[in-house]
Amino acid sequence: MIRSFFIALFLSMTIFQSAMTQSTSTRIRHTVVFKLRHPVGSAAEKDFFEAAMKLASIPGVENFESMKQISKKNNFTYGFSMEFANQQMYDQYNNHPDHVAFVQERWMKEVEDFLEIDYEIKE
Amino acid sequence: MIRSFFIALFLSMTIFQSAMTQSTSTRIRHTVVFKLRHPVGSAAEKDFFEAAMKLASIPGVENFESMKQISKKNNFTYGFSMEFANQQMYDQYNNHPDHVAFVQERWMKEVEDFLEIDYEIKE
Repeated sequence: MIRSFFIALFLSMTIFQSAMTQSTSTRIRHTVVFKLRHPVGSAAEKDFFEAAMKLASIPGVENFESMKQISKKNNFTYGFSMEFANQQMYDQYNNHPDHVAFVQERWMKEVEDFLEIDYEIKE
Repeated sequence: MIRSFFIALFLSMTIFQSAMTQSTSTRIRHTVVFKLRHPVGSAAEKDFFEAAMKLASIPGVENFESMKQISKKNNFTYGFSMEFANQQMYDQYNNHPDHVAFVQERWMKEVEDFLEIDYEIKE
């Protein structure tokens, strides 16, 4: 009887620990591939990227990358990639005033098409 | 006359060298986001991922990652990411018999939808 209790207690703790690990420590790579309305090489394009680089300074953003998309199998021309230690840090970034302002003032006006892709990654 | 010839020769060499640098030293991250025909958690799905893991052993493949796609803004469920030192290594991978066989025997039959996205990355 006592033995069964300890086995049940051990199992409960293991399940609880596993659930906690899942929700708090899963690392996320947030990516967005996009195409701008601006001509490639234009001053407007340069200005957009200068504004976007400030996203890298928002707390929680790790490994920020601004890249050229080169596959001919899609129509996007650029991509951003960044990592967050967990979902909470990602949510904080999404709600950060600098990110919200960038989306409203720049992204929605200057981006023609985009796709967001997020991955759970192993450390 | 001779001077013009040498100037032209020098320019040709510079342009050639620049083209070579472009094609041989730009690091590439090749990614593919996809959705399988198999039910999530099925034995068929497990078998597909076991076969896919062998792609990581093809010469030239670096930083191979197999990941769960978690954004609700697209319908894909998984992704692979890998890096190549340059376009030549990427081409070698594409033409490698193990990759060609995987695409024909597994990918084309078991993948419902996918999108390839490739990035030029800074070292």
